[in-house]
Amino acid sequence: MKPRILIMGQLYWAEKDCQEFLSPIADIVHMESESREELFADLAEGGRYSDIVGVYHEHLSAERVGHPDEAMINALPKTCRWFAHKGAGYDSVAVHAAKARDIGVSNTPGAVDEATATTAVFLLIATVRRFSACEAHLRAGGFTPMPAVESSAHDLSGRTIGILGMGGIGRRIVDYIRPFGMTMMYHNRRPSPVAPEDMAYCSDLYELLASVDILMISIPLSAATRGFIGEKEIRHMKKGSIIINTARGPVVDEEAMIRALQDGHLGSVGLDVFVKEPKVDQRLIDMPNVTLLPHVGTENQDARRKMEVLALTNLRDYIVKGVGPNLVPECR
Amino acid sequence: MKPRILIMGQLYWAEKDCQEFLSPIADIVHMESESREELFADLAEGGRYSDIVGVYHEHLSAERVGHPDEAMINALPKTCRWFAHKGAGYDSVAVHAAKARDIGVSNTPGAVDEATATTAVFLLIATVRRFSACEAHLRAGGFTPMPAVESSAHDLSGRTIGILGMGGIGRRIVDYIRPFGMTMMYHNRRPSPVAPEDMAYCSDLYELLASVDILMISIPLSAATRGFIGEKEIRHMKKGSIIINTARGPVVDEEAMIRALQDGHLGSVGLDVFVKEPKVDQRLIDMPNVTLLPHVGTENQDARRKMEVLALTNLRDYIVKGVGPNLVPECR
Repeated sequence: MKPRILIMGQLYWAEKDCQEFLSPIADIVHMESESREELFADLAEGGRYSDIVGVYHEHLSAERVGHPDEAMINALPKTCRWFAHKGAGYDSVAVHAAKARDIGVSNTPGAVDEATATTAVFLLIATVRRFSACEAHLRAGGFTPMPAVESSAHDLSGRTIGILGMGGIGRRIVDYIRPFGMTMMYHNRRPSPVAPEDMAYCSDLYELLASVDILMISIPLSAATRGFIGEKEIRHMKKGSIIINTARGPVVDEEAMIRALQDGHLGSVGLDVFVKEPKVDQRLIDMPNVTLLPHVGTENQDARRKMEVLALTNLRDYIVKGVGPNLVPECR
Repeated sequence: MKPRILIMGQLYWAEKDCQEFLSPIADIVHMESESREELFADLAEGGRYSDIVGVYHEHLSAERVGHPDEAMINALPKTCRWFAHKGAGYDSVAVHAAKARDIGVSNTPGAVDEATATTAVFLLIATVRRFSACEAHLRAGGFTPMPAVESSAHDLSGRTIGILGMGGIGRRIVDYIRPFGMTMMYHNRRPSPVAPEDMAYCSDLYELLASVDILMISIPLSAATRGFIGEKEIRHMKKGSIIINTARGPVVDEEAMIRALQDGHLGSVGLDVFVKEPKVDQRLIDMPNVTLLPHVGTENQDARRKMEVLALTNLRDYIVKGVGPNLVPECR
């Protein structure tokens, strides 16, 4: 009998890939549980998923069975030793509970670097040039001239940008924006091995904040980074500065950011992520000078397929080699 | 007495530069004529601008005195030998009339390469990722998932882009998008000296059209390029293709483009320019899957200052050396 894998959620783009490279060595089961209670019963001894060796986890499954918190991880059968999360950020997964039970958790880091970094570049241009206000003006029947835009918008080349977090996505952002000729620097807990050699490392966060026109946030959410950019940090930035966030909403103190937008300390923000998703603060929605996306950093079929394939690859490698390529640091 | 220069329009950002490098050698006169008739009288013998040697022309002056068509060029006094237009595109200037009277016309090409190319990159990402629909959805109270976006949006890396027109702006676009890893090709009347050596030149327009997912338009408007991309050309493109236009609206047959959007042959368009500016066709405005900007390709203070300074530089060099650096080809 082949080892059984539970698909928690759905394969949207990689069903064929799954048939090709996972089905020959594994028995693929799609989760049919309609509630959290039913899932837990299905995972328990005698339940229909009681013998699975691995899980493919996709975040929309939360609508049916909730997030993979400690309770869900602890409900997994003893046979289960791998939890393949589809996505770069895995703050929704109780990794420490998994580690305690010796279940490996994997994410899909490289697969979304392009999609997320491209979104960051979009938000960078949109905010520095105030293009959201321009499009809204046109769609409301207006046209140029727009003196308020002209006087607040800039060419990128004269601006200074600070990248907060130099991992795979941060590095990709640097690659994409380099031709625009901005002054670039970055802050990280320590100098990053993936940072370009010619790029200034700023060990002091406050020195970086005071130097930049744009702060580009690219750090994962964790207990240590929640509210990392708060009132004090925002007020260290120059008047008229811009914050771009494609990482996770709670990394920024959203209330402090809104206050700074309201009193003009911040000139604009470009956000793909929010504190209370899927809810977006109405005060942000009502601002014309900001650019807001509904967490679509990876919302395209190529990125989604790459993520799905990489998550499935982790399960295949776990079955074949005993370990997947993207075991998260907390489980190592 | 210093030679007199007429500022037709206004200096918005370079007033100080003008004082510094033009005032010492020229008498700067700001146009006070309130109508076309008044201007023509002011330019005629005995009029207050009858002895000007050069004109600084800024397109918003058209609101008062109309465009510099043949009549206006012919109304200029015999002393006038230089017409410095602020802007890269100079289709509003009757250059052949100027040539006939031996008046040099200059534009401001390099000054807006960055601003316009950056706008093109914005429209490229916005359309390939369908971000305008995303932001509109969010601002209407929605959030993800957006299956329609996911299934029509792509990563850039797998796409093929064709650049139509390889001048200063086209080349800058190539520099900016190169890190995204797209397949790139270009069409030009002849191989361009500014094209990168490793870039495929496609002498056959229709071969290029059939090959690309995105057509990026970067050719100036002239009698030869009006309606250059029409019904036949659009239908040569693959279903679901995208057109980006940051050049001039009439280069594309807007009716044909709208038909192709309506019947789904085109997947999206990203436009900064329109046929009947400042009017925008309501059918375009009503489409959620397109990105529309109100001709703001150069709408930022840095680009505007660079343009103003370059136009003034052409006047200074005309006075000092007899010729400015940016004499347009038609006047050479």
